[in-house]
Amino acid sequence: MQDKKSRPGPRPGGRSALVQAAVHRAVREIQAEGDEAQLTFPAIAVRAGVTPSTLYRRWGTLPELLSDVMVENLRPDKAPEDLGCFRADLSAWIEQYIEEISSVPGRNMLRTVLCADKTQNNVQCATYTLQQIEMLRSRALARGEKVPSADTVLDRLVAPLVYRLLFSAETPGPQHIARLVDAMPDISP
Amino acid sequence: MQDKKSRPGPRPGGRSALVQAAVHRAVREIQAEGDEAQLTFPAIAVRAGVTPSTLYRRWGTLPELLSDVMVENLRPDKAPEDLGCFRADLSAWIEQYIEEISSVPGRNMLRTVLCADKTQNNVQCATYTLQQIEMLRSRALARGEKVPSADTVLDRLVAPLVYRLLFSAETPGPQHIARLVDAMPDISP
Repeated sequence: MQDKKSRPGPRPGGRSALVQAAVHRAVREIQAEGDEAQLTFPAIAVRAGVTPSTLYRRWGTLPELLSDVMVENLRPDKAPEDLGCFRADLSAWIEQYIEEISSVPGRNMLRTVLCADKTQNNVQCATYTLQQIEMLRSRALARGEKVPSADTVLDRLVAPLVYRLLFSAETPGPQHIARLVDAMPDISP
Repeated sequence: MQDKKSRPGPRPGGRSALVQAAVHRAVREIQAEGDEAQLTFPAIAVRAGVTPSTLYRRWGTLPELLSDVMVENLRPDKAPEDLGCFRADLSAWIEQYIEEISSVPGRNMLRTVLCADKTQNNVQCATYTLQQIEMLRSRALARGEKVPSADTVLDRLVAPLVYRLLFSAETPGPQHIARLVDAMPDISP
């Protein structure tokens, strides 16, 4: 829902969606080949089989296009693991999330999105995170567990870890994560 | 202390410090003139009266130089106001801090630092914030007040607000800030 609201995106299968898919694929291929110098609108256009003006018209600048591609990469590819209780589910999910975005590609994704400052994409990062948290919450509620609000999870767990990731030299470790989970209200021990 | 530790920087008054001052000044002048196109190593070198190779040798890339200049801009220019109690001091300080970094120049500073991903500068952003928090804390402790740890203030107040600033479309308002201050442990009402 939130996802749809925050970035309607092109009609699936429509011409515009096909162009987007081809352009995103071209960017991913060039990035996979690791040749940064090839990451230009003209080179991407040739690879995608579209005109450079299509790219300028649709994305304006390279950072905006890269931000769009990176946000796609940030889309979670699976539901969080179900370990039978909210605390365990939340801990496992956040540990994996931090591990992913603290990796070199993960940091690059985050940085690319923040650099372009395309609000829609910045918001999308948080929306993906919220959707995962909501999955964990509804699962727990179905089990009859008491759970904190999604905002509380963002404020008390995700934000402090992402802040450390962005503004400190160390990556938050399991102890740090456990400390934040333990300090969170409304979680059954 | 932290400041010194995290970025020793050139000896004040030394040749290297004079070069840095001239280069930073040149960048600020060009930025003030608002001509982004002039923000290049060759143009900055001419303005600063140094050779471009000095810039390449010392800063490597333009984003790294811009990151250094922006971090200088982020250095607090005064101690937080003293309103006689920690809660009031903290609220006034964080409201002003969020107002500043949510402004267009403030967002640009933060983005420029995050884009360059020069760890030392990312850390420096948090160090400046920590130093302000420590000033508020020691003042309150001198008054005999009970105060949360600086890490608690970062985790429970700064991080959630900065996360919203970076990943949501709205800027956190006074109510939002007050809610986080109220929820913080170890603050006398």
